[in-house]
Amino acid sequence: MRNIKLTIEYDGKRYSGWQRLGDDDKTIQGKIEKVLHQMTNEEIEIIGSGRTDAGTHARGQVANFKTNTEIGLAEMIDFMNRYLPRDIVIKRIEEMPERFHSRYNAVGKKYSYYVWNNVIPSAFERNHSFYFPQELDMDKLNAACEKLVGTHDFIGFSALKKSKKSTVRTIDELSIERKGEMLHFTFVGDGFLYKMVRIIMGTLLEIGTGAMPIETIDEIFESKVRQHAGETVPAQGLFLDEVYYR
Amino acid sequence: MRNIKLTIEYDGKRYSGWQRLGDDDKTIQGKIEKVLHQMTNEEIEIIGSGRTDAGTHARGQVANFKTNTEIGLAEMIDFMNRYLPRDIVIKRIEEMPERFHSRYNAVGKKYSYYVWNNVIPSAFERNHSFYFPQELDMDKLNAACEKLVGTHDFIGFSALKKSKKSTVRTIDELSIERKGEMLHFTFVGDGFLYKMVRIIMGTLLEIGTGAMPIETIDEIFESKVRQHAGETVPAQGLFLDEVYYR
Repeated sequence: MRNIKLTIEYDGKRYSGWQRLGDDDKTIQGKIEKVLHQMTNEEIEIIGSGRTDAGTHARGQVANFKTNTEIGLAEMIDFMNRYLPRDIVIKRIEEMPERFHSRYNAVGKKYSYYVWNNVIPSAFERNHSFYFPQELDMDKLNAACEKLVGTHDFIGFSALKKSKKSTVRTIDELSIERKGEMLHFTFVGDGFLYKMVRIIMGTLLEIGTGAMPIETIDEIFESKVRQHAGETVPAQGLFLDEVYYR
Repeated sequence: MRNIKLTIEYDGKRYSGWQRLGDDDKTIQGKIEKVLHQMTNEEIEIIGSGRTDAGTHARGQVANFKTNTEIGLAEMIDFMNRYLPRDIVIKRIEEMPERFHSRYNAVGKKYSYYVWNNVIPSAFERNHSFYFPQELDMDKLNAACEKLVGTHDFIGFSALKKSKKSTVRTIDELSIERKGEMLHFTFVGDGFLYKMVRIIMGTLLEIGTGAMPIETIDEIFESKVRQHAGETVPAQGLFLDEVYYR
């Protein structure tokens, strides 16, 4: 069977997330599978590199699927982009070895989180950033980012209740770039726990305003108590940018 | 009476344009006037620098209004941004001399038009650009822009049937910048006729694909026949960036 890899961009605003839920049509996975069925007449299940929550966006989500169709790749991507809703776009399509698995083979991910940090909001960025008008201390923010980089048990920065699997993860990069009113946070790591980026972001913002001391980060690594971390910031500022493979 | 100047940003997607039409609430003017009424309890009519069509966006539309309220400017802008829909934002508020008139005193305008020029569409830019996958000859486009700059009778590039007023306008700048898949066209001039930017854009794109010879521009300046120009491109790629005053 052929094994096809898709690189997918989507505006998550209208969707209840990546993962298909029964016959629910308001998921990214559901929309793509429906178009693949139209195209091939096969019942195709796609495997995503991971779920994204309701409202989260992607510039480089990856998924793969098996098919017996003989349709060429160029024709496939044209068909899909023609029949998918306009807020879901297949950016790239590739033929892969049969053993390729978009989730098991992923070795890392890159996320962006955008904060509109100005008293005056933005009419255009409102659905793709978090409007946060309070002043932020960039030195504190950068120092907090440094503390988070590295290998830690991040369970206190996740929405997981318990986990049988390891909750140790490595963050390779956590950087901030300001362009005008917009703060762009970049997260690169080997994997991220459930809601981990958004809880880290909420914690960073509390540290940035001075509401939380920077040492709380060490304390949460030790105590593993999620309640000590900041609030989960809204999904609309979050973008899955890239999934890394060897 | 006080005379207040507003600089306004809006995402035009949900609106039937700037100008209030009776009690229609789907206009930018209507939304702003409604909030001003809530704020002052006066019947306030705002004067825009000009209309924008349904679907057109603005980063720097200007309007002014007269009021007897004693509310301070900082409180006004806070109130307005709190109660306006989130796709309309007051960026700046200023106290002006009583004779200031946002339409009569405007001496020029700057518009942007965005073209997403790639076979693969964009999930994020779809409402703020025109998806145009055909290849464009940048040399031809730049040469056509040069021909349009200057003082001409632009009636053949407008949707006006006839006009008692002069249809001579001066374009000071018409430039193109490519950033990745996005082409950004900048128009600066002393004024633009009804649908002039969008008809010029449609003409430029036909010249860029080679479907129309560049000499058609001279021909339209002479013949003044709108049917010889290109189609009116969609409003969603158009932004009113700035209104100039002395």
